[in-house]
Amino acid sequence: MGEFELIARHFTRPVPPGGGVALGVGDDCALLAPAPGMQLAVSSDMLVEGRHFLATVDPAALGHKALAVNLSDLAAAGAKPLAFTLALALPSVDDAWLAGFARGLFALADAHGCTLAGGDTTRGPLTICVTVFGEVPAGGALLRSGARAGDDLWVSGTLGDARLALEVFRGTLAVPAEVFAAARARMERPTPRVALGQALRGIATSAIDVSDGLAGDLGHVLRAGGVGATLEADAAAARVAARGAPGMEAFDAAAWRSLALAGGDDYELAFTAPAAARAAVEAAGHAAGTPVTRIGRIEAEPGLRIVDAQGAPVTQRFASFDHFSATE
Amino acid sequence: MGEFELIARHFTRPVPPGGGVALGVGDDCALLAPAPGMQLAVSSDMLVEGRHFLATVDPAALGHKALAVNLSDLAAAGAKPLAFTLALALPSVDDAWLAGFARGLFALADAHGCTLAGGDTTRGPLTICVTVFGEVPAGGALLRSGARAGDDLWVSGTLGDARLALEVFRGTLAVPAEVFAAARARMERPTPRVALGQALRGIATSAIDVSDGLAGDLGHVLRAGGVGATLEADAAAARVAARGAPGMEAFDAAAWRSLALAGGDDYELAFTAPAAARAAVEAAGHAAGTPVTRIGRIEAEPGLRIVDAQGAPVTQRFASFDHFSATE
Repeated sequence: MGEFELIARHFTRPVPPGGGVALGVGDDCALLAPAPGMQLAVSSDMLVEGRHFLATVDPAALGHKALAVNLSDLAAAGAKPLAFTLALALPSVDDAWLAGFARGLFALADAHGCTLAGGDTTRGPLTICVTVFGEVPAGGALLRSGARAGDDLWVSGTLGDARLALEVFRGTLAVPAEVFAAARARMERPTPRVALGQALRGIATSAIDVSDGLAGDLGHVLRAGGVGATLEADAAAARVAARGAPGMEAFDAAAWRSLALAGGDDYELAFTAPAAARAAVEAAGHAAGTPVTRIGRIEAEPGLRIVDAQGAPVTQRFASFDHFSATE
Repeated sequence: MGEFELIARHFTRPVPPGGGVALGVGDDCALLAPAPGMQLAVSSDMLVEGRHFLATVDPAALGHKALAVNLSDLAAAGAKPLAFTLALALPSVDDAWLAGFARGLFALADAHGCTLAGGDTTRGPLTICVTVFGEVPAGGALLRSGARAGDDLWVSGTLGDARLALEVFRGTLAVPAEVFAAARARMERPTPRVALGQALRGIATSAIDVSDGLAGDLGHVLRAGGVGATLEADAAAARVAARGAPGMEAFDAAAWRSLALAGGDDYELAFTAPAAARAAVEAAGHAAGTPVTRIGRIEAEPGLRIVDAQGAPVTQRFASFDHFSATE
C-alpha cells in the first residue's frame, strides 16, 4: 500500500444520501446538489504550522480547528453546512498523526452534517486548506454590509480566551492552571456558532465572524455598511471567560479590554440588529444555546468610538491581529 | 497600507453579473448561484514550492498553472467553469511577484469566464491552494466509472511534454533548445481541455484528467469501471509533441513510450466512448479545437495490457508519478 493509499484510508467515508452531495471523494470532481432556491456559501482558509498552530498541537485538535474556522465563516453568513474539501501538505506520513487529525476533523464534521467531498494530498511543510460549502436561501445570507444607524451591536459567546492562552504559551502572561486549560481549549477547539448564524437569518442586519479581534473585525462591518459605532469596551471585556476566575486579580481593566477587543481567534459572531428585534435576538441565542450580549450601537457617523461603562472615551489602542504581519 | 491590503489589491476585481457568482471577494463567504437544474462540480488542488514548481518559476506561469490544474479537473467532469477560491501562503510580500502571479492567474480565469470568488492569505512557505467550481447538468457529469467493454480508449492533445522538460531541468536528458522551450511551455502553462470536456458530455462514457501519467491514471478508470483495457503504447507515444523534431533521433521507442505513459503533468483528458460514437468524438475534438487520438479499447478482463504496434505485449514498466512518494 502506497503512502497515498495510507492517507486516503483515513479520509474515505461513505457519502450520506440526501445531504446535498451527489458525488464525494474519488473522482476528478465532487458534485454538489444544493436544494432548489438555495445559494451556495463558500469559504476557504489555510492554516500553516508555526503561524496558526504549533508542531506540538494535538492532531485531533488541529483537525477540529481546521474545519471550525471555516464553519465559523458559514455561521457568519447564516448558512447551513453541507460539505468541505481538504487539501493537505504533509512533511511525512505518520499513521497515528493522521488518525488523530481525521478523528478531530470528522467529529466536528459529523456534528454539523458536513461531508468531506474531495481533497488533495501532497508532501510539503504542514499546511491545511479547507474549503467549506453551505446552503442559504437565495437572498437570505447574512452579509457584512447591512448595519444601519440605530441598530444594536451584539456579540456571541466569550471573547479573548484564545488570546489569553496564546500569551501564556508565549510566556508573556501567567495564569492559574484551570484558567489556562479552559482558555487553551477555546484556542485549540473553537466552537463555530453555526446554529446561531442560521437562527439570526431575517433578524440580524449584518454579521461577521470574530477571527482577527473584535475591534478590527467590526471595522470591516462599519466600512461595508458605511456607518460608525459606539462600542462599550467594558461590556465586551466582561465577556472574557476568565473574568472573575480566582487568581486573575492582577489583570486590570485595560488587560481585559485588550483581550476582548484585540484578542483574535475567537470565532464568535459580531452582528447588528434593529433595537426592535432585541427579544428576537435573545430568542435566537436561546434556541442556539449560545449567549448573546449587547455591546454597543450603530451610528451614522463613521468610525469606531470605544467608550467605558460611564460612556467616557477609551484611549487605549486595539490593534487587529494580522496573520500576515504579526510577529509571532 | 498593510501587507494584507497590498495583497488584496492584486486580487480584488468586480464580479461580472450573470456568471453564477452572487457575491464575490470581501465577505465571510462568497455566494454561488448555480442555474436551476445544475450541479456544482468542485475540485481542490494544492501546489507546494519545491514539489510542484521551483522557486525560480515565472510567477505569471505559476498563476496560470495553479488554476489550470483545477480547470483540468472540471474538464474531466465535463463542467463549465464558474468560480474559484485562492488560498495563498507567502514567505514575503513581493509586489512584482504578486502582480505577475495575478496576471497569469486572471488571464486564464478570464479566458474561461471563471471568477475569483474568495480566498485567504497568510505568511508561510509558498503554497497555493485553488478550489474551483463548475456547473454541470444534474446527472450529466463525466465520471471515471462509466467505461464499458467494447468502448474505445481516447486521449486528447499531446503527452509527455511536461515530463521531458522536467528531465531536462533535472539534467537527466539533453534536447535541442527549441524542443526544450516547447516542452517547458507545456510544463509551465498546461492547457486545461475545458471545451473538450463539455463537448464530450453525452458522448464519452468515462473521463479522467491525465496528471500523474497516462498508465497510472487509466488504472483509476479501469478500477472504477470494473473493466480492463488494451493500450497501444506506440499510438500514445506518437502523441509526444517532440516526436520527430530534429535532434531527437537518440530517443528510442522505450523513451517515447515512457514519456507518454508515465510522464505526469499532462492535463490532457483520457476518456472512453462507444465505438459507434467515433465520429461524434472526432466532431467534439474538432469543435473544441483539440486533437483526439484513439489509443486502445476497453475489455471485460480486468487489468491494463500494454501492447506495441504489432499487438505484442510491452514488458516495460510505467510507474505512476506520485507527488507524495516521488523523490524530486
